[in-house]
This record gives sequence, structure tokens and C-alpha cells, in this order.
Amino acid sequence: METIITTRKARAILQKELKDKIDFKTKPVGSLGRLEEIALRVGKIQNSLSPHLNRPHIVVFAGDHGIATTGLVNPYPQAVTAQMVVNFLKGGAAINVFCRQNNIELIVVDSGVNYLFHSGTASERFISAKVAPGTNNYLSSDAMTEREALLAIEKGNEIVAGIASKACNMIGFGEMGIGNTSSAALIMSSILKIPIQECVGRGTGVTDDQLKVKIETLDKVFIHHHLDKIINNPILLLSKIGGFEIAMMAGAYLEAARQHMVIVVDGFIATASLLIAKQLNENILQNCLFAHTSGEQGHEKMLAFLEAKPLLHLGLRLGEGTGAALAMPLIQSAVNFLNEMASFESAGVSNK
Amino acid sequence: METIITTRKARAILQKELKDKIDFKTKPVGSLGRLEEIALRVGKIQNSLSPHLNRPHIVVFAGDHGIATTGLVNPYPQAVTAQMVVNFLKGGAAINVFCRQNNIELIVVDSGVNYLFHSGTASERFISAKVAPGTNNYLSSDAMTEREALLAIEKGNEIVAGIASKACNMIGFGEMGIGNTSSAALIMSSILKIPIQECVGRGTGVTDDQLKVKIETLDKVFIHHHLDKIINNPILLLSKIGGFEIAMMAGAYLEAARQHMVIVVDGFIATASLLIAKQLNENILQNCLFAHTSGEQGHEKMLAFLEAKPLLHLGLRLGEGTGAALAMPLIQSAVNFLNEMASFESAGVSNK
Repeated sequence: METIITTRKARAILQKELKDKIDFKTKPVGSLGRLEEIALRVGKIQNSLSPHLNRPHIVVFAGDHGIATTGLVNPYPQAVTAQMVVNFLKGGAAINVFCRQNNIELIVVDSGVNYLFHSGTASERFISAKVAPGTNNYLSSDAMTEREALLAIEKGNEIVAGIASKACNMIGFGEMGIGNTSSAALIMSSILKIPIQECVGRGTGVTDDQLKVKIETLDKVFIHHHLDKIINNPILLLSKIGGFEIAMMAGAYLEAARQHMVIVVDGFIATASLLIAKQLNENILQNCLFAHTSGEQGHEKMLAFLEAKPLLHLGLRLGEGTGAALAMPLIQSAVNFLNEMASFESAGVSNK
Repeated sequence: METIITTRKARAILQKELKDKIDFKTKPVGSLGRLEEIALRVGKIQNSLSPHLNRPHIVVFAGDHGIATTGLVNPYPQAVTAQMVVNFLKGGAAINVFCRQNNIELIVVDSGVNYLFHSGTASERFISAKVAPGTNNYLSSDAMTEREALLAIEKGNEIVAGIASKACNMIGFGEMGIGNTSSAALIMSSILKIPIQECVGRGTGVTDDQLKVKIETLDKVFIHHHLDKIINNPILLLSKIGGFEIAMMAGAYLEAARQHMVIVVDGFIATASLLIAKQLNENILQNCLFAHTSGEQGHEKMLAFLEAKPLLHLGLRLGEGTGAALAMPLIQSAVNFLNEMASFESAGVSNK
């Protein structure tokens, strides 16, 4: 009890000292807007008046979805998941470009792609953590077993623990998986308790007719698996309609918070995975900064549910962690102003 | 006539080719949202399918305002303008931090500061272009002569021409001047023809009472100078209520457009200066990308008037070009994806 009070007191002192440090910088109070909130938050995560961001990483989890072979929810063929993994490894995807630009280390994880990557794929940025070659089609059966869901979460833990051991303290998670906006929409509908049609969007670009079929299909899935009856049981939920990449990312969030990392949350699917992780540990939100509001319908409602205020509003709907990679320079800017700006006193500038 | 048609045709072809290049990248069509618009725009500005951003610069124009000595519109003393210029030269201000981080070259211009910078101020990043040591107090007289307004514009031209000669092709403008949100609000009210109270904000942080006095004061100024009668005469408008830094920035915009630069427009005061520049040359808007929506009331209305959609919404209200400096990495990201991402064909990824 005494320790808790001491910790609380220490936190209050840190908060006050961080606020003062920000307010005495040579700028009007509050004039750096959201960056001031970010600086405060990062200071609190690192328990420091002079936080530092070290070796930022983006980890992209890739997995296939059985539903994708039906063509009912996605315009691209399932093979694109594996093709894009190869593209990531060759450096030609959007996430490669943004990571290169912003000095972010990129790791690509096979969480459950329906493709056997040959040994020639070996790359410093590739991790094979395949649980199975894609989920089952949840129209007719469970996507995975609960054991597989737990295994995916454990693998996510291990991957992030490995990255943390390299002194990385800021991490973002992306995903690749044809059909995975459907899984994310089902998770959202079940956890937020709002109708599936409010959670389903165009994903990577379905037409009006395809959208109608997508909604009808997911409505059936929701009823078939009694998703409304699953209360605070994220492992069961994952087993019904999850994806391996979504489950593994949930494990990654949990470990990143345990490692006191700054977590940069990407878009629709990454936020759905966070809903899962949050049910397993409510406290992880303290470590999360939200990168952007996605162009995918439904994301705003998820963000509202999490009381999250994202940094960017660029209408991105690509996944891969691209929003997180684009937001990281702003987070760096927040930390830099806190560390590098002169104070009124040190610069000899008159205050009000 | 024939040349115009040919030019128009060439532009339409470029637009189509840029669009195709963007759409064939390994991502769903449109999924990079605003970045796709930016890539298209930069390609058009540079008349190239492979645009490049070279030696980005921020130029901060500093000037004093006679009104500031009355204390009626600003909480900080006038001396802060000169003190902050020294802070810029020493590298301790927010704009220094963001320019260092994002590899942006910073130039600080004395456009009309009420302080004699001694020769020890000499620095690669300092340009002395003082028109006069601050404007007159526009409560009782004209802020400057029309000749001074023109001189400031000419100096702005020259400064940017010099920077362009160093192969810089992306530029943003910032300002420092205690009291200059008042000048900007008066320009906005006159050009947009909306009441002054809708244009006046808290600037760098006035209280409720101070805000009331600020509005009453500027209302008097508006009437005294018959600002409602000034139609499309930006030089006259500048002479009545302008600032040297605002006039010089207007000249800088005009030259930057002539030099086919990408212009990154900062916040409230920078946008007011753009209103002036636009009256002198309507076409400059084609070169402008808008960095952010400021936390200063009135900025959104100016942006709507210009049909501008800014990249960032961070509640910044600091000036100095900080919003432009923070937005430049996103513009770089747009150019990078256009140049570096693989196409569906080159990566062997299946399209829809």
C-alpha cells in the first residue's frame, strides 16, 4: 500500500516537472498543441524528464484468412498476401519507403501465410513464426483453435522481447493479410457491441455490390459464431474469427507494454488487435500513441471507444504499419523540442 | 494561342501519367490518401513524373509592430521579437529543433525589428533586410508608406531568388513579430469581408479580458483606416495595417512561385500574407501545399476561402514556420513513394 502511494506521488511529481519543463520553453504555453501532449506522454512512459527514442521499429505481421478464398469479402486474390511479403523483403512496398526515409527498422513476420517461403527468403528482416498456413474459413468452422490463438500471442511476445533486447524503445505494428478487414470488423462488432454494418468498410477497395455481399457474409458469420455472446473472452473470439497476424500483434502489444516501450498504433486492423490486447491487459493503453485516423469506415468509432486522439488524418487505408511509420517523425519532434529547446531563462527571452 | 493549347495538352498528359504511375504502385488505388494528392501536385509543379525535393528551406521573417508598444493586443513585450531572433540564431527555438531534425536549412531575416543587431549577429543563417525599425502604430497613423510596402516585397523577392540559386526547390515561410496576429486578422477581415471579431484569436495567449480589448482595438483600427473600402489593393492595405515581415513574406511567395518551387504554407500569419500575395498573382496557389490548420481562430476560415486542405491538425499556434517544418517530412514521403515503390508488374504482385 505504501509503495503504491509512493509510486503515485512520484508520478504526480514527474507529471508536474514535465509540464513545467514544457511550459518554460521559449514559446507561449500550449502553442505546440498536440506535440506537447505527446512529449508529456513519452516522458511518463519512460519515467524521465529527458526521454529518448531509440532504434524505432515497425513489425509487419502477415497471415492468410480462409474466408479470402471464397472471394466474398475481398477484391484481391489470397496469393497477394505472400506476394506482398516478398515485396516487403525486396524493399518495394510503401512501408519500406517510409521506414527507409524515417530511419525505422522493419521486421516482417510470417504469422500464418498460406505459402511456404523457401530458405532463400532468409533475410535479417524476416521472421518465420507461422502458426498454420492461413486460418480456416470461419463461414463454416472456427478460424483456429484456442491453443493456436494462444500460441500466436506467445510468438508475438517473443518477437517483441527479442526486439526490446536490441534496445529499441519505440515500436509500431502493421499487418498484411487479404481479407483481414473482415476479421477486424467482426472483432470490433463483438467488443464494441455495434452492428456489423457499422464496422464493415471497403477494405482495400470493394465496390458497392461487393460491400453489400461483404456485410451479408459477415452478418451470417456473426450469428453463426454467436459473437454477441462472447463477453471479455478475447482468446475465444480470436479462435472463432481471428487471424494469426491479428492474434500475434495482440501478443506483441502486450510485450511492448511490459517492456515500457512507446507503442505507435496504426489503423483499422491494428486497432482491432489492440481491442483484443486491451481485454488481456487494460493498462497497455498508457503506452499507446495513436498514429492516424484511417480512411476505413469504423476506425473512428474504435478510436472513440478507446478515447484516442490520433496524430494524423490523411485518409490512409493501406495497412502495413504505414500510418505508424509516417507519425513517428512527429513523435520524434515532440521529444526533440522537450530536450533541445531553450527555456525563457536560458535564452534570455522575456516571459509574459 | 496554339502554344497555350499545346501546354494545356501536355499538362493533361502529365496529369494522366502521374495518376497512372500512382495507381500502379503495389497498393490499392487511393489507399495512400492525401499523400497521393501531394505526389500528384508536386509532380505537376515540377512538370515531372519523378519529382525531387532539393535543399528544403524555411525562411523566418521578423518584424515589429508599433501597436505592440501599447500593450492593447499582445501579452508579451515588444522586445521579445528581437530576443527570439537571437534565440533563432543560437539554435534554441522550436523552429531550430524541427529544422535540424528534418534536414531543413533555416534562414532568419530581419525585415523590420525594433533592435539594432550588432555585427556579432553575423551568421550564415541571418539576413539583414530591415525596412525600418518596426511599423508605426496603426491606431493613429499608417503602419508604413506604400513605398516601404513595395520595398519589403522586393526584398522578399531577392531573398528567395538567392535561395533558389542554391538549387533549393521546396520552401516554407515563418514569422516572428510581437503583435502580428493583429495585422493578420485585419488583412483577413478586409480581404475575406468578414467581421473582425471572427478573425481575431488569442494569438500567443491573451486572456478573455485581453481578447475583448484586442477586438475593440482592432475594430477601431478597421474603421479608422476604412479597410472595408480597400478592394484588391494589397499594397495600400499593407501600408495601412501591415507588418514588414508580412509584406516581405508576400514578396517571398511571389518569387518562390516564379521559381517553380514547392511552397509549404504555415499558419495564421503566413496564410494572411498569402492572401496579399494572391491578390498580386492569383496563380501562386498552384505551387502551395498547406502544412496545417492552426489553433488560432480564424485560420480555418482563411483556409476555406483558399479552398485549402492542410496536411496536419495539431493545434499549433506558435508561428516561426513550425507547422511547415513538421509537414515537410510528409511531403517527402509522398515524393518518395512515387519514386521508390514497386509497381504491381515490377514486384510480381497480382492486381484485382
